[in-house]
Amino acid sequence: MRRIDAVVLFSVLALVAGCAQPSVDVHAEGEALMELSRAWSELARTGDVDTLMAYWAEDAVMMPPGMPPLEGKAAIREFVEGGMQAPGFEIRWEPRSVHVARSGDLAYMLERNVMTVNDSLGSPVTTHGKVVTVWRRGPDGTWRNVVDMWNEAPPSGN
Amino acid sequence: MRRIDAVVLFSVLALVAGCAQPSVDVHAEGEALMELSRAWSELARTGDVDTLMAYWAEDAVMMPPGMPPLEGKAAIREFVEGGMQAPGFEIRWEPRSVHVARSGDLAYMLERNVMTVNDSLGSPVTTHGKVVTVWRRGPDGTWRNVVDMWNEAPPSGN
Repeated sequence: MRRIDAVVLFSVLALVAGCAQPSVDVHAEGEALMELSRAWSELARTGDVDTLMAYWAEDAVMMPPGMPPLEGKAAIREFVEGGMQAPGFEIRWEPRSVHVARSGDLAYMLERNVMTVNDSLGSPVTTHGKVVTVWRRGPDGTWRNVVDMWNEAPPSGN
Repeated sequence: MRRIDAVVLFSVLALVAGCAQPSVDVHAEGEALMELSRAWSELARTGDVDTLMAYWAEDAVMMPPGMPPLEGKAAIREFVEGGMQAPGFEIRWEPRSVHVARSGDLAYMLERNVMTVNDSLGSPVTTHGKVVTVWRRGPDGTWRNVVDMWNEAPPSGN
């Protein structure tokens, strides 16, 4: 009887442990994602394309205004390198809000950006944008960007 | 002993049932969402704003190009009604791809749209757009749009 009790207890514990839902702290994950976005924006100031590229997933899609979707890291890298080489180019962004799925494998942020580039006479032209980014967390626990889209907004209203 | 066995068995079953993960068929949910988007686009042809509005969540954010974010259904409704009243206005869209979180409470789609509106001389002007939509499934099981964003794309490349 004692031995049977132990076997039953062990079985119950094993079952409960085995089917326990992985608990995701969506609030903490959201905060981490916003920090990730801020760090990524800081990196954009350095112009180090290799480091910047690490934030996108291999199958990420970038959706710049006026262009077809850029699908995959090679297409995104070409666009980013082109931007970095434009005279007077500068970009920064910041997250406004974040929402993480209960399963912790998908999230999105609403963000805003400010981009400057020189016009043909060498005068800096600044545009303000609103941004939606979608993020996926892989089996290694790392969040990577899968969708990066923006469009223009009034300077004080994005 | 018999009675104790039954109690143990019942407890084990209750524990397993209680902690079982709700199984989400992400493929089926994705297909359902793409159908929802197609049905929504069909509805847009009727111009019935009340029915159209049911697809947005109360706290949805619309991000039209050149404008600040429109936050909440009242702001979105005003924008939609304005569009519907524009001479020659027509819009349709179709989903290209969908991704659903494992927990089945969050999803996004990449879509494309085609919008026509008359210019000041009454000639129809058509623009093509690429679209990101984010969807949330509420406790009632209904998917509702929480982010609706688009920007311009070349006619054949969105």
